[in-house]
Amino acid sequence: MRIKTLTIIGVGLIGGSVGLAAKRRGVADRVVGVGRRWDSLERAQTRGAIDEATQDLATAVAQSEASIFCTPVNLIAQQVLSSASACQPGALITDAGSTKAEIVRTVETNLPRTVLFVGSHPLAGSEKSGPEHADADLFCDRLVIVTPTERTLPEASARVTEFWQALGARVERMAPAEHDQALAWTSHLPHLLAAALSNTLPQELKRLAASGFRDTARLASGAPDLWTAIFAQNRAAVLRALDALEDQLSRLRSALSAQSCQPLYDLLVHAKRARDDLGS
Amino acid sequence: MRIKTLTIIGVGLIGGSVGLAAKRRGVADRVVGVGRRWDSLERAQTRGAIDEATQDLATAVAQSEASIFCTPVNLIAQQVLSSASACQPGALITDAGSTKAEIVRTVETNLPRTVLFVGSHPLAGSEKSGPEHADADLFCDRLVIVTPTERTLPEASARVTEFWQALGARVERMAPAEHDQALAWTSHLPHLLAAALSNTLPQELKRLAASGFRDTARLASGAPDLWTAIFAQNRAAVLRALDALEDQLSRLRSALSAQSCQPLYDLLVHAKRARDDLGS
Repeated sequence: MRIKTLTIIGVGLIGGSVGLAAKRRGVADRVVGVGRRWDSLERAQTRGAIDEATQDLATAVAQSEASIFCTPVNLIAQQVLSSASACQPGALITDAGSTKAEIVRTVETNLPRTVLFVGSHPLAGSEKSGPEHADADLFCDRLVIVTPTERTLPEASARVTEFWQALGARVERMAPAEHDQALAWTSHLPHLLAAALSNTLPQELKRLAASGFRDTARLASGAPDLWTAIFAQNRAAVLRALDALEDQLSRLRSALSAQSCQPLYDLLVHAKRARDDLGS
Repeated sequence: MRIKTLTIIGVGLIGGSVGLAAKRRGVADRVVGVGRRWDSLERAQTRGAIDEATQDLATAVAQSEASIFCTPVNLIAQQVLSSASACQPGALITDAGSTKAEIVRTVETNLPRTVLFVGSHPLAGSEKSGPEHADADLFCDRLVIVTPTERTLPEASARVTEFWQALGARVERMAPAEHDQALAWTSHLPHLLAAALSNTLPQELKRLAASGFRDTARLASGAPDLWTAIFAQNRAAVLRALDALEDQLSRLRSALSAQSCQPLYDLLVHAKRARDDLGS
């Protein structure tokens, strides 16, 4: 895959990493970064993640065969739609948002058929943000979910799949709603839990929080605005996952209160097997 | 601090690391390892964590100025007491158990006054176990809690403090019950949460669990027998911490269900501040 001009909208951790990887791997000859804040764009350019920077979305997409929206999930759909009329016919658009159903539905309902769109979500990232943490290898051997629907042109899925594979990722296809339901368990629930744990720690015990606590609560360092938007787009599924977690906690509570140690031991054995299965 | 012969009872991750650190830093001229299983003792000796291996606790402590019990918390008190009559007068004994109140109470009630005992807990470790994961730098700049009581001889506290400092650790003193209450929040609660999260993940979604999930659930890989014993010695405090966590989860649940995003955003901002405060 070879793209003459790739536009990246939002040059934070994910957008910056897409730029670095695309340039390092020869996927794009030229990368244009679009953002609202000049300081982010400048940092992305200094980092080598983009070749040119602009605040003008329409001008950028007009020059590009492919554009990827790496902005907060509450902004993506409107930004895609507002760029559509400026796009070249046959231009490819994807995004990197952590939720998919609402974004894909809004985009598909309103996008002209001359533009090829399919949603994506790279399962990579970190609690850190900003182009200074961008990494050319962020997507190496990571899974990217591509979310076609019955309205998606096969060419759009094929090219976006090829794009992510060219950045080193593995690709799996899934319906947008199925993606959101799955991510509620694997990503949004852990984030909620890390936040709850972080908010539970009494101030005077902070000095005693060692690596075990810090790892378990690490996700709570994620950007609150980005995560509020993610949760807002996936409330129902996150609440169902939270139900299941609270059920597990109440099993552990009963086991802790039991006379015998066996029920607690059994739950911990099950948890260890499940965690060990995931690898390090 | 210089010990002619140091005996380490239990040569797993912690005991093995004590041996490696004591030898590397010249704290002990000779380290004797005591264990029940020859294969563990052999691995510890191959690793260089101990100079000699024996299954005979009494013979080992009889030769030693200092002994440290790095065995599961449900075994420590009885092992300390059963070794006492073989100890040299003035011999120093400590342990590395993750709970302190029950161990210290049982030992102090029954130990002859000729032996110096004070409890310890190094806030270091990992979900891994076994002497093959031992690390001479495991205690470097880590906090070790030493738990004297009104019955502890000042000499015992001073020497155990000096011992851990010689292995590179910082030392803080705390009453045994205060230690257990604190660790319920900073260590036992995160473990419980990691186990609950691990048990919540549906089998068919395992392939989608990326680094965020894996980090949050990492502690669940800890040894179930060791952790069952830890929880059994600190039930009441762990249940109180679990109450507080469930309260935080229900605040997050209400915020998720609210019309406005503001309450959720506020909770996530608070959680981020609290987590960022802890450092990486």
